[in-house]
Amino acid sequence: MAKLKLYDLEPSGNCYKVRLFCALLGLDLELEPVDLMGGAHKRSPFIDKNPFGEIPVLEDGDVVLRNSQAILVYLARRYGGEDWLPTDATGMAEVMTWLMVAENEIARGPGDARLHDKFGFAIDVERARTNAARILSLLEAHLKSNDWLALGRPTIADIACMPYIALSHEGGVSLAPYPAIQAWVGRVKAFPGFITMPAL
Amino acid sequence: MAKLKLYDLEPSGNCYKVRLFCALLGLDLELEPVDLMGGAHKRSPFIDKNPFGEIPVLEDGDVVLRNSQAILVYLARRYGGEDWLPTDATGMAEVMTWLMVAENEIARGPGDARLHDKFGFAIDVERARTNAARILSLLEAHLKSNDWLALGRPTIADIACMPYIALSHEGGVSLAPYPAIQAWVGRVKAFPGFITMPAL
Repeated sequence: MAKLKLYDLEPSGNCYKVRLFCALLGLDLELEPVDLMGGAHKRSPFIDKNPFGEIPVLEDGDVVLRNSQAILVYLARRYGGEDWLPTDATGMAEVMTWLMVAENEIARGPGDARLHDKFGFAIDVERARTNAARILSLLEAHLKSNDWLALGRPTIADIACMPYIALSHEGGVSLAPYPAIQAWVGRVKAFPGFITMPAL
Repeated sequence: MAKLKLYDLEPSGNCYKVRLFCALLGLDLELEPVDLMGGAHKRSPFIDKNPFGEIPVLEDGDVVLRNSQAILVYLARRYGGEDWLPTDATGMAEVMTWLMVAENEIARGPGDARLHDKFGFAIDVERARTNAARILSLLEAHLKSNDWLALGRPTIADIACMPYIALSHEGGVSLAPYPAIQAWVGRVKAFPGFITMPAL
C-alpha cells in the first residue's frame, strides 16, 4: 500500500477529518506536523505544495491535494469503493450538497466562531454565532428524521460535517438545544476504528 | 429526454451556472422564476423542496437538488460522461478542490462584495474585498500557466468559478490587474453553446 502523508495540525478539524477517514478505511497515514505558529505554511517548501498556504495537504505518491473535502473525495474514490461516495449521479450529488455545507455554512458558523474564540482570529463572532444557530437548526431538523446526512447510510458527508459541529462548544456555541445532532455525533463516534481529537 | 426544471433568479450567479451548463450540454431546461423579493423562497411550496430557503433548486423527474456546485456534479455525472467531471480519484479530487473554492473563497470574496453592493446585504464589504483580492491573486497565478482550472481542459471547475469572478465589478472589484483571469473568462465565453447573463 502506498504510504500516505498528511501535512497536519492536531487541533485543526479539517486535518482531523482526514486522519479520521484514513483510520476508518484502515489506511497507514504518516503525519507531518506543520509549524503554523512559525509561519511554515506561508513559506517553501509547504507553499509550493499548496499555494493557498493552508493545511491539510495530502500526499499519496505523486498526488498532492489541498482542501479537506476534496481529500475525502479522493480517499473515498481511491480506497473506499462505492461505500462512502457512490458514483451514480443522484447519490454523488446528494453527498456533495453536504460537502458544500461543510465548506460554507459550517465553516462560516461554528468554524469561524471557534477560530475567534480558540485561536484569536479577528472575526465577527456574533455573525458567526448567528450563522451557527441557522445551520444547527437546519441540521437538527434533518437529523430528527434521518440517522445520517445522506443516502440513509454513513458517507463522507458525515465525516466532513461532524468535526466542526462537535467542536461547536469551543466557539461558544452549545449543542444542548440539538438532541438529534448530539445523537448523530454519537453514531459517528461509534464507527468501528473511530479515532478522536482534543476537545471532541 | 427528461424535462429539467430550475427554480431560478435571473441575476443570481449560482442560478446562471446551472443555466450555462445545461446550455453547454444541450439540455432542455424549464425556468421557474422564484419571487425572492416577495419571500417565496422562505415559504411552501419552495421551502419543502429546499429547507435552506435558497435558489437554485433543480428538479429532474423525482430528483430534487439544492446547491449550485452539487447540481453541476449531478448534471456532469448524469449527462456529461467523463468529460466535465472524471470519476478517477485524482481527476475528480482536482476538480473538487475548485468547486470548494467556488463555495468558499469566491463566495466570501467577490460573491459577498456583490451581495453588498448590488443587493444591499448587510455584509462587511471591506473584508469581502480583502478576501476577493486574495483569491483573485491566487487564481491569476494559477491561470498564468494553466488555460483551465483543472486537468488541463474545461471541467465543471471552470463553470463553477467563472460567474462570480466575471461579475466582480458589480461588487466594486476590478479585474484590470488580472490579465490571465480576463483571458480565462474569455475562453469560457467562447465555449460552443455559451449563453450569457446580465452584467457579464
